[in-house]
Amino acid sequence: MASFEPNDLCTPVFIVDLQKVKQNAQAMLERFQQMGVQLRPHMKTHKTVECGEIMTGGSRRCIAVSTLAEAAFYAEHGFDDILYAYPIPLDKVERCAQLSEELVLFHVLIDSRVALQQLRTRPLKGGKDIFQSEGVELTGIYVHCGNTYSCSGEEHIKAIAQKTTTFILHFMEKMKAAGMDGPKSSIGSTPSCSHPVQDMAQLSEVHPGNYIFYDAQQMKIGSCKLEQVAVRVLTRVIGHYPSRNQLLVDCGWAGLSHDGGGCLPTGYAIIEGHPNLRLLSMTQEHGRVEPISGNLDYKKFPIGAMLCLIPYHACATAMMHAIFFVHSEGKVVDKWTPTRGW
Amino acid sequence: MASFEPNDLCTPVFIVDLQKVKQNAQAMLERFQQMGVQLRPHMKTHKTVECGEIMTGGSRRCIAVSTLAEAAFYAEHGFDDILYAYPIPLDKVERCAQLSEELVLFHVLIDSRVALQQLRTRPLKGGKDIFQSEGVELTGIYVHCGNTYSCSGEEHIKAIAQKTTTFILHFMEKMKAAGMDGPKSSIGSTPSCSHPVQDMAQLSEVHPGNYIFYDAQQMKIGSCKLEQVAVRVLTRVIGHYPSRNQLLVDCGWAGLSHDGGGCLPTGYAIIEGHPNLRLLSMTQEHGRVEPISGNLDYKKFPIGAMLCLIPYHACATAMMHAIFFVHSEGKVVDKWTPTRGW
Repeated sequence: MASFEPNDLCTPVFIVDLQKVKQNAQAMLERFQQMGVQLRPHMKTHKTVECGEIMTGGSRRCIAVSTLAEAAFYAEHGFDDILYAYPIPLDKVERCAQLSEELVLFHVLIDSRVALQQLRTRPLKGGKDIFQSEGVELTGIYVHCGNTYSCSGEEHIKAIAQKTTTFILHFMEKMKAAGMDGPKSSIGSTPSCSHPVQDMAQLSEVHPGNYIFYDAQQMKIGSCKLEQVAVRVLTRVIGHYPSRNQLLVDCGWAGLSHDGGGCLPTGYAIIEGHPNLRLLSMTQEHGRVEPISGNLDYKKFPIGAMLCLIPYHACATAMMHAIFFVHSEGKVVDKWTPTRGW
Repeated sequence: MASFEPNDLCTPVFIVDLQKVKQNAQAMLERFQQMGVQLRPHMKTHKTVECGEIMTGGSRRCIAVSTLAEAAFYAEHGFDDILYAYPIPLDKVERCAQLSEELVLFHVLIDSRVALQQLRTRPLKGGKDIFQSEGVELTGIYVHCGNTYSCSGEEHIKAIAQKTTTFILHFMEKMKAAGMDGPKSSIGSTPSCSHPVQDMAQLSEVHPGNYIFYDAQQMKIGSCKLEQVAVRVLTRVIGHYPSRNQLLVDCGWAGLSHDGGGCLPTGYAIIEGHPNLRLLSMTQEHGRVEPISGNLDYKKFPIGAMLCLIPYHACATAMMHAIFFVHSEGKVVDKWTPTRGW
């Protein structure tokens, strides 16, 4: 496609900085290569082929997904060794079995005996068999240290990462003592994988996802710095309301999502380059912007002026957009189309 | 398509009760026909051709939209007399001009002199001219009484509807006194149009939208009753966590949206038929359900059991779904595909 400036795009628009995405991917790949741990990047944040390719270093192997629609989408695009990182819903056993038959490796998670019983009702064709004579073969333990999302700062993240790692390593030892020496161990979240502790080198796999974009929430947690955040929503000023000391912009929750309301001093997003502005509230297609202190200088924000929103939660914001506009060196160089549904 | 039970659908899934949609549409059409006021239904809640047809009583004429993508979508599907009910963003003037040239009637809104100047830079072809010799022709005044959304009960809604109506009628009188007798007057919101006051008969148009589905928010406001709400998200139980007195279900914010968190005693949704259950929190694809009081009886909610969520805000929940499954008399009878983007 012809290159053009991000500022020419119809707003609101979700834009992705290709260089930052590549840097975030490379940093995570190198970090866990050095630790000798397999990185299994999670696709749920972006759900695009292009980003999946970048996160796997071009291999299209060894990924985690959050929906079966993602699993099918990546399988169609030549990805393999896919982990459906979700307690398998019983209505999806048949589709999972079909994917298992198509792919070299397709993993499902269970956390109940009922799910185990359901898997047993659907043996796999083509010589594949997940069953041993006495039951299903356990290939790994999966823990998501979601509690890192309440952290504040690197040391706090490391403390939770250590606690989770110690917990799962202890569990693995118990399994080994009980005669189960094969299963892999896996933990992960973007905060813990951005600041891993040394003991994580004893794990088999990690599965972070959000780090490919990062966002204001990850900045707040301490996972990343502003310059690592790869995504923005561009929005234009569409109204001046001096009687309310407010601007109206053309991005509402349909373009940003309502995720994280009240979690930032600047409201629903960070307005880049304007630390005194707050995205106070949104309707479906409108955003209300006001100064944190003082009166708005409307000359600085004429009708039509572009503002750049750093999302609180990139996963939630990306979900609102059917197309991601990808830019590099000030030019739009690609359009990515995420998959949707379940 | 072949009919099947909603309970056979892959979850989470957004389902629409066709009979309730038709009843909600018919009630609104009849209400304003009797008052002699033109109903201009808003498409933003559903963004589908099928619902647009039902809301216009089959005419495909006289609608309001919230994005230019919706305007183009409805124009392509034979709709006309379309109001782009939004302060026109300056980057969209050219596309608006093209739609004005294609359609018999396409209306835009402005609330600034800058927007007026921009419209003047793009005269319309084909003999159409929105300009008079001295400027742009004003064809109507549009007010959205969004403050009805903070109402509680029919009397409160009527008080706000009366205040807004009185305000705009007074404004129209002032315009008439200043020699401007032509412009139409328009107000509307689902609460005020569900319980209109008599003075609204003096308006030219009303433009509600959400009423086609209604939702838990509209029940809370007093616009509708439970039996009028036409949409649900179906979700399945995927986990039992007795140590936390919780169920896990397969609907997170990707299937419901985060809209309205904390606004209902039952959390992010109403769980139909289970007034003692609360949707406490969500991740992207998981929902945590707990009892409001007492201990969960897990036998009532086995793994795989279906729960039926009444969304807090149907507009926000519908936006999360690329397909709506439409049911009637217990069978899935259609699939509707909404438009997206801007």
